Amino acid sequence: MTWTSLRINGTRFQQNFNQLARIGATNEGGVHRPALGETHLKARAWFREKALQAGLGFQEDSAGNHSAILTSNNPDARTLLIGSHLDSVPNGGRFDGALGVLAALETAQTIQDSGLFLPVNLEVIDFTDEEGTLVGLLGSMALAGKLKAEDLVNPRGGRENLLAGLEKTGLTEAGLLSARRPASSLAGYLEVHIEQGKRLLTGNTQIGIVTTIVGICSYRLVFIGRADHAGTTSMEGRLDAAQGAADFTLSARMLVMQEFPDCVANVGDMRFEPGAYNIVPEKVAVSLEFRSPDAERYQQLEERLLDLARQAALKFGLGLEIELRGKHQPSPMSAKAQTAIDAACQTLGLSSMPLASGAGHDAQAFDGLCPAGMIFVPSVEGASHSSREFTEWRDCINGANILLHSVLNFLYN
Amino acid sequence: MTWTSLRINGTRFQQNFNQLARIGATNEGGVHRPALGETHLKARAWFREKALQAGLGFQEDSAGNHSAILTSNNPDARTLLIGSHLDSVPNGGRFDGALGVLAALETAQTIQDSGLFLPVNLEVIDFTDEEGTLVGLLGSMALAGKLKAEDLVNPRGGRENLLAGLEKTGLTEAGLLSARRPASSLAGYLEVHIEQGKRLLTGNTQIGIVTTIVGICSYRLVFIGRADHAGTTSMEGRLDAAQGAADFTLSARMLVMQEFPDCVANVGDMRFEPGAYNIVPEKVAVSLEFRSPDAERYQQLEERLLDLARQAALKFGLGLEIELRGKHQPSPMSAKAQTAIDAACQTLGLSSMPLASGAGHDAQAFDGLCPAGMIFVPSVEGASHSSREFTEWRDCINGANILLHSVLNFLYN
Repeated sequence: MTWTSLRINGTRFQQNFNQLARIGATNEGGVHRPALGETHLKARAWFREKALQAGLGFQEDSAGNHSAILTSNNPDARTLLIGSHLDSVPNGGRFDGALGVLAALETAQTIQDSGLFLPVNLEVIDFTDEEGTLVGLLGSMALAGKLKAEDLVNPRGGRENLLAGLEKTGLTEAGLLSARRPASSLAGYLEVHIEQGKRLLTGNTQIGIVTTIVGICSYRLVFIGRADHAGTTSMEGRLDAAQGAADFTLSARMLVMQEFPDCVANVGDMRFEPGAYNIVPEKVAVSLEFRSPDAERYQQLEERLLDLARQAALKFGLGLEIELRGKHQPSPMSAKAQTAIDAACQTLGLSSMPLASGAGHDAQAFDGLCPAGMIFVPSVEGASHSSREFTEWRDCINGANILLHSVLNFLYN
Repeated sequence: MTWTSLRINGTRFQQNFNQLARIGATNEGGVHRPALGETHLKARAWFREKALQAGLGFQEDSAGNHSAILTSNNPDARTLLIGSHLDSVPNGGRFDGALGVLAALETAQTIQDSGLFLPVNLEVIDFTDEEGTLVGLLGSMALAGKLKAEDLVNPRGGRENLLAGLEKTGLTEAGLLSARRPASSLAGYLEVHIEQGKRLLTGNTQIGIVTTIVGICSYRLVFIGRADHAGTTSMEGRLDAAQGAADFTLSARMLVMQEFPDCVANVGDMRFEPGAYNIVPEKVAVSLEFRSPDAERYQQLEERLLDLARQAALKFGLGLEIELRGKHQPSPMSAKAQTAIDAACQTLGLSSMPLASGAGHDAQAFDGLCPAGMIFVPSVEGASHSSREFTEWRDCINGANILLHSVLNFLYN
């Protein structure tokens, strides 16, 4: 047979998917597998067992990334990474991450079963803490050599939580910071993932070829007024931090909708101090996040949003503290990977469309390091990070076959 | 001597003030005496000791109100209440409440020392929990027979906190609910208090004659949208609860400033759910409070504010839950009391102006029960509920002398 007729084993793939979905299963039909928590460790152990049963090599690096490896006969072979992550957000869904790891495992087993000559090592990787219960993109950034010591000082999940997770699994900060693989050893990275949006379903399209992963930037903006008695202080005499926060929240949305149609912005939280019915708010801390697929508009949007915050503060006589909380640049996917995925869609007769990913993914860690690409499959109702997350099984099969053929295109074309 | 030449003993008054201010003193120069907490209990014990030392009667009622009583020789005498409260907000100031209790104690001692015939019992009262660390206006509402069992079910300080305080002091819910005094036994209620605003200082006036205590109403308004991934959900496709909350916050302020100039409104807190940078807010609970000196405008303002909330929800496709959290009607002070205070200002040659109280006070409990009145003295910078709270000592003396002469006018005019 020629490799163009190869297909993954749908039965084995589905059995694996269902087994894995039982680990950390929630009553609502999702999974709860925060990074390095009990259920996540069980899922990791299950993956190790599967790899060994399949006769694949198994490896854990110093960042806790788990790999099932189909080794090339060529001792000088580089490595093609395929995979995703097994951790979930708290009370998340069954597909986010898990689908990508299992599609990659199935791809490796299908190639193993085929007996095809392998010019590179094919490594199925389960990255540590993609979702950010601890740090976010922890394993992939560590592997890419992009994790910095300062990223571990005040991580989004809290430092104590991180240290507890590392200790439990025998990992160390030094290990995280030295997990870098040389770029010369990497042939590329490919990942299947659910879209987490509605564009494929709305466009009646089977496969999304990711063109770029958006840049994601978060700020904590603290509007600072004065705490006063809310009964005895005149409206004119107040320095009301809530007014600045509210003004900014409305104007940020209008700016994005009117002038940055390919971007998004979110005010996801506010914290009031002192936060009482009868006291004019002294401080309101606004959690702002915005995303852009394009580096130039990313920078423009950042400047415009911070300007809006300054204007809102000025309008109500408030102070403003601006604290950058995190920033990832937009990561374009490689032309080589997009071509390989596009060719796979043609081989398999599946419809496809180019898409920017609005969410962050491990693939962005490989920007500048090696060719990286992502394959999206449709999300029903666009739901994600929720037990409502769902993808039709035929679309999961499609995603795995597209990964298989993208890998084959990478290897043999 | 005639009673018009009577004056309080400024030295004794100041010694008492300074002694009391040391109980629960904070490093910032204020006091921390939350109701039925350790420091508040010490302040209550100090007051009891002072009353007994002065040869006054002492009484505790079943609502925990403490009274120092100068008893009339007339066995059928009614009771004229004068006083305020010794509890403070957390990290509050030295003047709020304490000044009123001590001015009343000094008034009773001055009349006692004068040997004047007393046609009524003069009762200096320290009300339990005015500030609302537990319930708010607890002792005065109980005494007035206006406290209801439902007020104790979900009080603003939390039910456990209330029960713990009651147990510590040997009080009971049944006692709170049966502390009512018959209206026929009450001749009136007079209270000295700091203004907690800037109108007296701005108007260069020594005494404020309170015309009414504003109605205070609080609502919890919950804007309900849908939690979505803030990266993969288009701006147009969001049901963002933050937008409704922000729109309402701005429009509520504009409404009050433009159409209700004698009223105030405050958005003192918001709580976001789930409250993450990367999730569109599903729920935002807004803590709204508004106040009006006039019953008719109070009702109009309530209707207009709730309309604005409904409009804000509609505009962004949100649901809205409206939960009334508390409502006190505006309480006009009695004409008799205002006349007595005005005459006292003329006797003492002090400038005065009529004022609405923007804050709630124990005096409002007596609305419809007996003539009640309040005397305000200037607050430097209008600061209150803060260690910055300050009133010049000469103004404290003025307040106590005005209380003395208002009482004398009540008794002898």
